[in-house]
Amino acid sequence: MSFQPPDVLLLGPGPSPISASVQRALAMPLLGHLDPAFLPLLDRVQEGLRRLFGTRNELTLPIAGTGTAGMEAVVANLVDRGDRVVIGVHGVFGQRFAEAARRAGGDVVEVRAPFGEALDPAAVAAAIAAGPTRVVGVVHAETSTGVLTPLSPIAAAARAAGALFVIDCVTSLGGLPIACDELGVDAAFSGTQKCLSVPPGLSPVTFSARALDKARTRTTPVPFYFDTRLLTGYFGPDRAYHYTAPISMLYALAAALDEIEAEGQVARARRHVEVAAALRRGLGPLGLEALVPVAAATPMLTTIRYPAGVDDRAFRSHLRQVHRIEVGGGLGPLAGKVFRVGLMGHGARLENVARALAAFGDALGVAGVPADIAAALAALRAG
Amino acid sequence: MSFQPPDVLLLGPGPSPISASVQRALAMPLLGHLDPAFLPLLDRVQEGLRRLFGTRNELTLPIAGTGTAGMEAVVANLVDRGDRVVIGVHGVFGQRFAEAARRAGGDVVEVRAPFGEALDPAAVAAAIAAGPTRVVGVVHAETSTGVLTPLSPIAAAARAAGALFVIDCVTSLGGLPIACDELGVDAAFSGTQKCLSVPPGLSPVTFSARALDKARTRTTPVPFYFDTRLLTGYFGPDRAYHYTAPISMLYALAAALDEIEAEGQVARARRHVEVAAALRRGLGPLGLEALVPVAAATPMLTTIRYPAGVDDRAFRSHLRQVHRIEVGGGLGPLAGKVFRVGLMGHGARLENVARALAAFGDALGVAGVPADIAAALAALRAG
Repeated sequence: MSFQPPDVLLLGPGPSPISASVQRALAMPLLGHLDPAFLPLLDRVQEGLRRLFGTRNELTLPIAGTGTAGMEAVVANLVDRGDRVVIGVHGVFGQRFAEAARRAGGDVVEVRAPFGEALDPAAVAAAIAAGPTRVVGVVHAETSTGVLTPLSPIAAAARAAGALFVIDCVTSLGGLPIACDELGVDAAFSGTQKCLSVPPGLSPVTFSARALDKARTRTTPVPFYFDTRLLTGYFGPDRAYHYTAPISMLYALAAALDEIEAEGQVARARRHVEVAAALRRGLGPLGLEALVPVAAATPMLTTIRYPAGVDDRAFRSHLRQVHRIEVGGGLGPLAGKVFRVGLMGHGARLENVARALAAFGDALGVAGVPADIAAALAALRAG
Repeated sequence: MSFQPPDVLLLGPGPSPISASVQRALAMPLLGHLDPAFLPLLDRVQEGLRRLFGTRNELTLPIAGTGTAGMEAVVANLVDRGDRVVIGVHGVFGQRFAEAARRAGGDVVEVRAPFGEALDPAAVAAAIAAGPTRVVGVVHAETSTGVLTPLSPIAAAARAAGALFVIDCVTSLGGLPIACDELGVDAAFSGTQKCLSVPPGLSPVTFSARALDKARTRTTPVPFYFDTRLLTGYFGPDRAYHYTAPISMLYALAAALDEIEAEGQVARARRHVEVAAALRRGLGPLGLEALVPVAAATPMLTTIRYPAGVDDRAFRSHLRQVHRIEVGGGLGPLAGKVFRVGLMGHGARLENVARALAAFGDALGVAGVPADIAAALAALRAG
């Protein structure tokens, strides 16, 4: 093919950069989805995902589709017509979650917070208690704002009400420890293109036994593609055909899971936190400011306010054209007011922070910045 | 990663072998889904798919998911609750199509033929005329049996009734000319892992303006993931975020479409027919017989009856372990009675036929076969 993509450093909200090992895995010879050499790899992928989700759930697997497909799979199986569903909405991904649940027939109660602020767990608990709630859903790391949601108190409130607790961890999985079983999470979905550093196109999901009970006993049918019973047919011991598994992407996911295993989840989470801290330290000298205080922020994605007078499109276009760096724009009410920097998975490295800050300084026309940043980073590196 | 897949010649019902160019494309550097260098490639993919589908439909795009996701997208948008839906069922993929339509709330009328036989277009027309039919669906190339469905008379009957006509061309697209606009097809879905010779994981779909009207005016909501309006947001000129496009797989699809363009659709279709004919000529000397007469058969997939006493599992395991060839088993009522040989896309080559026939002979313990086949192939090659 004549097309050759330019080298762009992916520091937006995803996709994140992939490693050489993941790149090689993508190009490995294809096998059939029932091949005896492939099935053990599929088992290994499921086992690796269980470790990341912190679960022993049997039904833990990558859905063929993007993170949004995982959301749809969770909603399609767990939200029955007329179910009271409480969803935390303080960003675009919460809005989408609520919208998907409404389309599935849920009677959705949105618990809102302004974009850029954290959900109030007490408000969520109050909404849960205000009616016969069947499902509670929150976004762990809200990709549109960079706000992290505290899961424990919400999980407790959901459990107390006998509701299923489901989380969107598209952006957090692989970058922060997730402890589904310990928290009592009944279903979670993610995407491969964030902290797992695999190209977009797969959505890891997990369903607890309670969640599968709900899927079994619901009154309205589940769309064929997302049916957990049919998925279990292939991903379980029967290996019954449900759909042709996306082999090459599964190779890539297996390679990434191997890398995560080798690094260790705790070390990997620490790396994300350290690199995010380095980015934050570099913002001040540039006259930039993070939207979200560090205590409420996701380490893997930092949303940064534009100083007055900086044009979003011109700024990001300068970064992309001159510095070959991708960052993300703002979404919803934050469009034009912020940009989003992802330091995720393979991309969460100090050298990327240095390159990004130097580029921001150049785009903003702030003089003398690179030297300051270099000194700050040298200090950080020295410990 | 320590995993290294063995080299297996993929002659089953999919995935089919991929070319070196597609393999290289998979490993190209990632770009963001809104990158200015990526978007023209996406346009090119859509344009290439329009040529394959034989359509000028604006909404022609690859869904992130397997071919089953494309089926779900078509059903989710076009089958409204209570709609009378006529589906041709003469194989597993027709059964699935009907099941998906029922789950979407359709009042499904199945027009059946035995597995391995063609649908009777007159029976389909009669079923369409027997009530206020809204949607008519058939499987163009039934992958479970290798039977081809004549589309023209069914299209005419659907059109006469004012129903939408939708086709499953998962296995035919890229191997047979499809003329959606000329036939009056309102929606079609396919998969990448058959005659397009791209790994599994994308589902090309196309929707006519009439189909989109139906999606707009339906009474029950479409699941978020598959909503044609939201898909149009990203794949249309707005480039509004719907989901993160599966970049690497789209590179691979673009590379495959380039190869198809270079070969020419007519030449490619002829290659599939010639190679299937070579396979059929080789069956007799082995004591094998095709399930479906050539006039009713798909060229890209040939279903072959086992002679009495041949064990399906042992036969296929011998092919895979000794000859490193994958073929497919039978499905549904044909399980254990047939095996399925796909000669699709990059895999549709005479040398693969020769290798396959030699391996079949070895597995069946038929003496002297390779020489006969070699002679037959030499004659074919000589024209």
